[in-house]
Amino acid sequence: MPVSPRRATLATVAASAGVSVATVSKVLNGRSDVAPATRSLVESLLRQHEYVAPAPRRGEAAGIDTVEVQFDSDFNAYCTEIIQGVVEAGAEAGVGVVVSVRKKIDHAAEWARDLVAAGRRALIAVTCDQLTGRQLTALARVELPLVVIDPLNLPHARVTSIGSTNFAGGLAATQHLLSLGHRRIAYIGGPATAACNQARLHGYRAAMEAEGAPVLPGYTRTGHFRYQDGLEHGASVLALPEPPTAIFVGCDESALGVMEAARARGLRIPEDLSIVGFDDTQIARMASPPLTTVRQPLREMGGVALRTALRLAAGEKIDSHHVELATELVVRGSTADVTCSEHA
Amino acid sequence: MPVSPRRATLATVAASAGVSVATVSKVLNGRSDVAPATRSLVESLLRQHEYVAPAPRRGEAAGIDTVEVQFDSDFNAYCTEIIQGVVEAGAEAGVGVVVSVRKKIDHAAEWARDLVAAGRRALIAVTCDQLTGRQLTALARVELPLVVIDPLNLPHARVTSIGSTNFAGGLAATQHLLSLGHRRIAYIGGPATAACNQARLHGYRAAMEAEGAPVLPGYTRTGHFRYQDGLEHGASVLALPEPPTAIFVGCDESALGVMEAARARGLRIPEDLSIVGFDDTQIARMASPPLTTVRQPLREMGGVALRTALRLAAGEKIDSHHVELATELVVRGSTADVTCSEHA
Repeated sequence: MPVSPRRATLATVAASAGVSVATVSKVLNGRSDVAPATRSLVESLLRQHEYVAPAPRRGEAAGIDTVEVQFDSDFNAYCTEIIQGVVEAGAEAGVGVVVSVRKKIDHAAEWARDLVAAGRRALIAVTCDQLTGRQLTALARVELPLVVIDPLNLPHARVTSIGSTNFAGGLAATQHLLSLGHRRIAYIGGPATAACNQARLHGYRAAMEAEGAPVLPGYTRTGHFRYQDGLEHGASVLALPEPPTAIFVGCDESALGVMEAARARGLRIPEDLSIVGFDDTQIARMASPPLTTVRQPLREMGGVALRTALRLAAGEKIDSHHVELATELVVRGSTADVTCSEHA
Repeated sequence: MPVSPRRATLATVAASAGVSVATVSKVLNGRSDVAPATRSLVESLLRQHEYVAPAPRRGEAAGIDTVEVQFDSDFNAYCTEIIQGVVEAGAEAGVGVVVSVRKKIDHAAEWARDLVAAGRRALIAVTCDQLTGRQLTALARVELPLVVIDPLNLPHARVTSIGSTNFAGGLAATQHLLSLGHRRIAYIGGPATAACNQARLHGYRAAMEAEGAPVLPGYTRTGHFRYQDGLEHGASVLALPEPPTAIFVGCDESALGVMEAARARGLRIPEDLSIVGFDDTQIARMASPPLTTVRQPLREMGGVALRTALRLAAGEKIDSHHVELATELVVRGSTADVTCSEHA
């Protein structure tokens, strides 16, 4: 049999076929979710390139590469959804997904080299804190592609990132409450400097302004997207002389804190207070009553991040350095007509 | 410089020093949590063996091994805690943790070979369904160590497993409710055949029997440790002619379903109904009211599983093929004195 001068890789075949590495991998694995025409094309190119799958032997370089997804903090329901999305997409693409919690990075160059040495093909950062310029440079030097999910700061061209339509989500949440007749609506959000929080807040402001509903003093709060924020700000906003009849909360976890703050004051949800969350993690549907919330497609965001990372690793061009997936209002039991709460 | 006939590995040095590979790795990484005497010993052995750290180059076999943690189903709050524990322990030991969802395994031998080919040093299975004999044999053939967390079936000597003291937990949960004066206590659990469910149920039965509290007809239910079970069984048990004043639920997620079933009937928690969960995942403290529950040390179980897996991979002997970590009752706001609910 003739031997190619250099063994063809999945990337070679993918490039020739004009498809992603994941698609070639699917064809190799006999998966059914590939269009017949694409399958034929890929199969003929695999033959043409005399592609040979790497032999299953520990320590063989090909096939043991992994993609690492790094979180900044302890895992919560939000992280769970992201992990699920990345892991599922990794399984489809035939690449292992290493999950880690990022500790303080003292030496950026060493950190980047270690990732490559450990066989990482790309890095996905789910980030609260921004990566430093030094860290970005270190990653670029070792040619390790980076994709950031839900960047806390405004995305810039140097970093590839995946987010969701936070402004539209904030708008939809507030319009839902306004449509139920609420006018005294408060907002309890995340860090003041976080891009996603700013977008949600301004979506809220835009909806209020369009309806001519005033944002009363003390009605907008910042926090850290944590349960405790909801508990504390919920208590203090409900103690205002003119308390809100509805609260839009910037994440589900904080929304559950607000629910508990309301219960502690003897308020019933949704009879006395309507609450809308943000994220639609598993805790939203398990709240009592189940939480009306703005769904971020977190699993899909994880999947897109993984596939984008692999495309970058394969040297492919991507369409845009930042992509936002659509949010969607999910109405459950924590919101009701204002007539219920007007006595408040 | 003299060259050793065969390059020393961390395992060689660890074996000479009589410590774990993780400890050697800690010394190499300059970590402070190693006893001074151990550090000296390891350092001198590293010199003696002329240990050379693998060069940081992608595709180098040493150092790119990973441990894989496999789940049977979509991730929930329980999985989140386990992942966190395994990932933290992996970071300490300097080994990457690949997270995956196990799909149907058609060819056991191929499945096991693929894991080795992908550079896995060990497998941790968080299992609802038992691994088949064929799968266990396939893993043994490729010498891939396996550790099972929370085995659903009674542990046997062929499989190394980590669990928690489920019987003691069931006993403590029920004793807590009895001590509050409750006598009509129901149990909503998991699969009838699951070892952990049986242990929790029998802990409940033992506590009831010791107090002479009868287990009324319809008072024990089986399920799948899911929210929906709590919702449905909660509704039906509360509709009994003699409804319980307290319910011990076999997992937090189901307990939240019971909370919602109670709310839907207009019952207040804990005034009209006391509820105890099991697991102490993040959703427990975010429930409204916060859920009294039996804490399973899930992170610690993940950590022990990782360290045990690495010990097995290094050829070390382990003390026991099954270890159970202690459960602990965590009292929060979902339980109260029966006098509150006696009118029910």
